[in-house]
Amino acid sequence: MSSLLFPTTPEKEFNICLVGSGGVGTIAALVLEKSGRARVTAVLRSKFDIVNEQGWDIESVDHGRLKNWKPSRVVPAIQDAVFGPPQSSKLGSFALPTGASTPYEPAKERYDYLVICTKQLPEKYDIATAVAPLVTSDLTSIVLIQNGLNIHLPFIAAFSTNVTMSAVSMIGSFTEGTNKIKHIGPDMLQIGPHYHAGVKDSISLERTQTFIDLYCAGGAKECILAPDMPKARYEKILWNGAYNTVCALMEMNVGELQRSGARENLLMPIMWEIVAVAKADGIEIGKEVVQHMAYRSPESSTYRPSMLLDREEERPMEFEVILGDPIRVARELGVEVPVMTTIYELLKLVNWTVEYGAPRDKLRNGLRSEN
Amino acid sequence: MSSLLFPTTPEKEFNICLVGSGGVGTIAALVLEKSGRARVTAVLRSKFDIVNEQGWDIESVDHGRLKNWKPSRVVPAIQDAVFGPPQSSKLGSFALPTGASTPYEPAKERYDYLVICTKQLPEKYDIATAVAPLVTSDLTSIVLIQNGLNIHLPFIAAFSTNVTMSAVSMIGSFTEGTNKIKHIGPDMLQIGPHYHAGVKDSISLERTQTFIDLYCAGGAKECILAPDMPKARYEKILWNGAYNTVCALMEMNVGELQRSGARENLLMPIMWEIVAVAKADGIEIGKEVVQHMAYRSPESSTYRPSMLLDREEERPMEFEVILGDPIRVARELGVEVPVMTTIYELLKLVNWTVEYGAPRDKLRNGLRSEN
Repeated sequence: MSSLLFPTTPEKEFNICLVGSGGVGTIAALVLEKSGRARVTAVLRSKFDIVNEQGWDIESVDHGRLKNWKPSRVVPAIQDAVFGPPQSSKLGSFALPTGASTPYEPAKERYDYLVICTKQLPEKYDIATAVAPLVTSDLTSIVLIQNGLNIHLPFIAAFSTNVTMSAVSMIGSFTEGTNKIKHIGPDMLQIGPHYHAGVKDSISLERTQTFIDLYCAGGAKECILAPDMPKARYEKILWNGAYNTVCALMEMNVGELQRSGARENLLMPIMWEIVAVAKADGIEIGKEVVQHMAYRSPESSTYRPSMLLDREEERPMEFEVILGDPIRVARELGVEVPVMTTIYELLKLVNWTVEYGAPRDKLRNGLRSEN
Repeated sequence: MSSLLFPTTPEKEFNICLVGSGGVGTIAALVLEKSGRARVTAVLRSKFDIVNEQGWDIESVDHGRLKNWKPSRVVPAIQDAVFGPPQSSKLGSFALPTGASTPYEPAKERYDYLVICTKQLPEKYDIATAVAPLVTSDLTSIVLIQNGLNIHLPFIAAFSTNVTMSAVSMIGSFTEGTNKIKHIGPDMLQIGPHYHAGVKDSISLERTQTFIDLYCAGGAKECILAPDMPKARYEKILWNGAYNTVCALMEMNVGELQRSGARENLLMPIMWEIVAVAKADGIEIGKEVVQHMAYRSPESSTYRPSMLLDREEERPMEFEVILGDPIRVARELGVEVPVMTTIYELLKLVNWTVEYGAPRDKLRNGLRSEN
């Protein structure tokens, strides 16, 4: 709402911090800024210098071409996004409720939403601990736009009186080069609150709905309340756990897998294992969903999913949640998942080779005839 | 036995035809020639021109260095090794029993042994049919020095009154370049007869023992009568089905697999599946054999097994028998082998990529941003 005395841009209601500004996070930041109702602080780390100077060069199926784009604020590290103790002001130092009503109020010294879009590499760092300085009790709602199962649990444990919601995203969006974003698959999100004892259900739902409203206002292709978040997570793993992983392992694109016979002989068996895990976890995934996931990509597709791109750029691949999570749930629930486990072990081997193996050329030429 | 009138080299008793002169077959031909009791005709096909002219350049752990070596006769095709109708001679035209006793007798117009060392690519051609012109009823004994399970069955079916024996070889020997043989792992053979209704058991055994005698006389590291051929075949598949396949799939050498953690998490599970198939097939393979096969290669090994070399040279890989055979037996006997099946399906994908996939560079650079 704007004041009649100050014909400036209406005060943006929401302070949002975003951690993980890769292909997914940068588009999320763009959408939230485009809503007109939020200011986004993006924690950039390695990309800080170039984005601070030149912004991002974005090619987006939803938002078109943007050059030199950046959110309201970029910082190089989490600690640079943290608020100090509350400043005194004419109106006192109490934390203000969401939605400043006049410009006289000081800038809100908290984040209303903390949006986490980092790649899931649990073995590398504990994100819930790392972001704790950004979280204000009760008032910062945590939004996890990430892969995996049960990803909300560490956050509910760490921030027991905060709302935590998570999103399953079908977006296809990747960083390229130093500051380019190639957003090639429409941004379609399902978001759901994770109800828990420390927060009234109605608050969890309300804060989730508000975020959905922002996201829709910002021009995303689709953003809806997930009717069943755990089910949506398993359904995403159907595709991710089969196609993303095998494309990365075999260095093939999706269309090649579809043409090769692997769909029926290898990928659908992976999907059926995931259905079995979901079933043991109380979630029914119907045959028609598996059929859809298996046949949705055409044989002409040249799509190269995120883990394959990670492998080529020698970045860590995200198989630890995409496969590791369902494998761990399977073990807890007594479900046999040997096909998934085999793919998982082979991806661990790929990782091992990248870290410890001889360069492939050297291996081939120098060491042939020894035994 | 030499004639007192003719102080020439004693007539060599045995006429042997060898099909499949690769790393394994060429060393077998060398051994049989070195026995001093056999003449070998090797069917060379694509290598004929160069070997006919220059011979093989062999580096062998058992036989040392030999340049320009070739067997008694080389031919470019099976039909060139086939005998015409029997020639008339002073002594008549009956087929002579094994062992000519004087030089007056015409050269024996049959092969005593047909040794088959081809790589097992059942989907490409039917070897039993292809070699039929070389087989004389009753008198040609068939020796299969090849991988796989139940490989004797098509030969017993096609040649019902002939002896068929097969061998499990631990040799490490590979072709390199145009006419080089690198024989790096000692030639250790177990040979066993496949008793069947069309031949007296005593004949099957006798002909097998004779072949073993020849092979030992020729300087192989070891050649013994297999106490249990079906068991020996399964035991070979323990190593081949785990290490050869995964090295080829992952383009890693044996030592890397040993260092990476894959031995316990991936390779031994494959071995346990093979043990389960063998067990259902009536063959007990003890834990200690699995331990031996899993730990026999040191972590420092740079050994690169045959399927990995095949993959690099874009030659077909032999997984159709190394994995395909036990998978088929498993299906017949109702044993679940999901890990082996996954590796098998992935190797089929490698094959598919070699035949139908875009060149890897083109895939990476040209087709990235399309969906």
